[in-house]
Amino acid sequence: MNLKSGTDTGNRSGTLESAAKGKSEPVNSLTADRIARLTPSPVREILSVASRPDIISFAGGLPDHESFPDVGLKKLDHDALQYGATEGEATLRQWIADDLAKRNLPVAAEHVLILNGSQQGIDLVAKMFVELHTLVAVESPTYLAALQVFSLFGAGYTSFEPSSTRELGHSKPALTYCIPTFQNPTGYCYTTAERQQLANACDNNGSVLFEDDPYRDLVYDECERQPVCSYIRNTDWIYQSSFSKTLAPGLRLGYLVCSPALYPTLCWLKQAADLHSNRLSQQLVLSLLQSPNYQDRLQVITSGYRRKRDHFDTLLQEHFSHLASWSKPAGGLFFWLKLSASLDTRDLLQAAIGKGVAFMPGESFFAKSGQSGSHLRLNFSHASETRSGIGLKILADLIEAESVGNY
Amino acid sequence: MNLKSGTDTGNRSGTLESAAKGKSEPVNSLTADRIARLTPSPVREILSVASRPDIISFAGGLPDHESFPDVGLKKLDHDALQYGATEGEATLRQWIADDLAKRNLPVAAEHVLILNGSQQGIDLVAKMFVELHTLVAVESPTYLAALQVFSLFGAGYTSFEPSSTRELGHSKPALTYCIPTFQNPTGYCYTTAERQQLANACDNNGSVLFEDDPYRDLVYDECERQPVCSYIRNTDWIYQSSFSKTLAPGLRLGYLVCSPALYPTLCWLKQAADLHSNRLSQQLVLSLLQSPNYQDRLQVITSGYRRKRDHFDTLLQEHFSHLASWSKPAGGLFFWLKLSASLDTRDLLQAAIGKGVAFMPGESFFAKSGQSGSHLRLNFSHASETRSGIGLKILADLIEAESVGNY
Repeated sequence: MNLKSGTDTGNRSGTLESAAKGKSEPVNSLTADRIARLTPSPVREILSVASRPDIISFAGGLPDHESFPDVGLKKLDHDALQYGATEGEATLRQWIADDLAKRNLPVAAEHVLILNGSQQGIDLVAKMFVELHTLVAVESPTYLAALQVFSLFGAGYTSFEPSSTRELGHSKPALTYCIPTFQNPTGYCYTTAERQQLANACDNNGSVLFEDDPYRDLVYDECERQPVCSYIRNTDWIYQSSFSKTLAPGLRLGYLVCSPALYPTLCWLKQAADLHSNRLSQQLVLSLLQSPNYQDRLQVITSGYRRKRDHFDTLLQEHFSHLASWSKPAGGLFFWLKLSASLDTRDLLQAAIGKGVAFMPGESFFAKSGQSGSHLRLNFSHASETRSGIGLKILADLIEAESVGNY
Repeated sequence: MNLKSGTDTGNRSGTLESAAKGKSEPVNSLTADRIARLTPSPVREILSVASRPDIISFAGGLPDHESFPDVGLKKLDHDALQYGATEGEATLRQWIADDLAKRNLPVAAEHVLILNGSQQGIDLVAKMFVELHTLVAVESPTYLAALQVFSLFGAGYTSFEPSSTRELGHSKPALTYCIPTFQNPTGYCYTTAERQQLANACDNNGSVLFEDDPYRDLVYDECERQPVCSYIRNTDWIYQSSFSKTLAPGLRLGYLVCSPALYPTLCWLKQAADLHSNRLSQQLVLSLLQSPNYQDRLQVITSGYRRKRDHFDTLLQEHFSHLASWSKPAGGLFFWLKLSASLDTRDLLQAAIGKGVAFMPGESFFAKSGQSGSHLRLNFSHASETRSGIGLKILADLIEAESVGNY
């Protein structure tokens, strides 16, 4: 692995010089060719010097603070309306680092990058590692919008299951993408042994591990949730999570942390993508996280979702026991049903919408077509319990009618 | 030009089917190869159906509305905390369409895409059109963070000046990027004839015109500001602007509009990048735009900046008349100085920071090295008038000391 990083986030004058001169060096031997063409934005780098109070800055294009409007937020630090740091607000990054330490993933606050939602992390990591024919290892099935981004940049795929990660050693993927805790769409939660085996597989084949962990705090039954990245010994890794599930998705706030060698490049890619994340959301999220009620809030949310999950499971047993099989998920937001009949669930969706019910067809969650069987992903968190009952009955009747002769 | 778009944003059931089946067709013959691999996220497309009140949705991963926190915003529509549409909030999109009509750029609200700041528009357009060796026409000099993104995706460059756009006909660029109104870094504002000629050049060579217009409302002297895109007759085009300069950059909100053929692909790229833009910012920006005080606010801002510009020009005459040449910009945020001496302004920056002054070296704004002469970009909007005077004096003394023998 090539670790001769040309930059050091702790050495601003070095960064400034490389920024002004447009230098860029590879940080990991598996990066996409485009990363050799990536330069930091001199504006962003110079601004980090220029924001020192002793500097008179003609450098950026910063509007005058006094020109900012009143946005009706009493608690707001007025500075939140100005351009901010690409990395994110320092206090929020420190909160995240402290929180991850409690989860056995110790990282420095300086290696936290605030994202415009964790979908953005997938975009940045794909830009960094994926080009035409890059092999990406993914769970089968996996989060469809990750497949969307990897495919855009040209990925080829190798699939794995939590119980068979040792086989990853043969395929030499550049990147291994996983959602070990309440997986999307299956809801599966890796055991401790499976987490260790996945980390070992990446250590052994040199693949960069990319762990996506948005659902970890929506936990209803006791289970292992320690990040797989915490078991990594020598390969590079990226871990990301989101405030969309426990606070509010409309605030569009997530973050990534990573092994130190990867950080400067991911930060430059964030600069190029949108300069920095919304500062208003960062302030709001930080104040909510720091509230003495935050832990109570998590309890209330998980209690409510646990009750919804249990009720949904009861409804499924009532309507689907002869039509499908599933496992009750220990956390997250989804049930993953395997239909007994062989149906194209995309066609089923068209029919279901005609009757007023929507779900996610299983096909989109598979990297390779023809692997999908007949699956449905059903969200249980959004619809009310009453409407869930009505909707599941409609869906079951439809599947029953359409599956005649298709077993 | 290939306009056989497979989707139609006005035909949701068609979009839904193509989304579920993962179909994608080219929309413009100049798109990057990766666009053939781009698929819409079925979640996002199905959600647009599932959000109908008559549909019971198990489709998305939407948190329960009741789980959302109080973020301390009295005026806030609680819905702003939920996942939203990739395209943006309908009322904000309509406001933008109405505003652009007044600027002689009539577009349908359905072709407005809300961005996480206009830097994101550059990322999306580059993903759509730029791959290794794609020729991009840029002004020389131009906005450095646009060069950063185009280069990341592999662009080669051909340069033009406002007065010589007819020559673009020979070079056949795929994309023509321009900032015709208060250009960054030069501050130049294209004449009416130059705007027409640039549009004609793109019409004639088939290049996609990408107009970046963040500074248009920071106008201090009367000048032509009609979008170049309004003069396009047949080629595809993208126009973008931002709320960072007139409202607040920390809200990270901009938008693009485009010829209809390009819209679905840009929207899919936005989905893949970050699902959608911050809804809180969209609500805040809309309420500020709809305020009866908004026009007064623009007047106050431009008056303040005009005074700062004039004062800065006076300071420059005092300290730089023997060291550099410049034009007083009719709008925007920058002065662009050409030094009489031949200096590497990146080295000058290191020395200036040592004395407490920051500026942007000119070199970063040029696509090709060796074209840059000795230029400085000086922002006049941020530093106070007093500090500007001190800083310019320091900078002038430094240049004088360093330029001995370098004329």
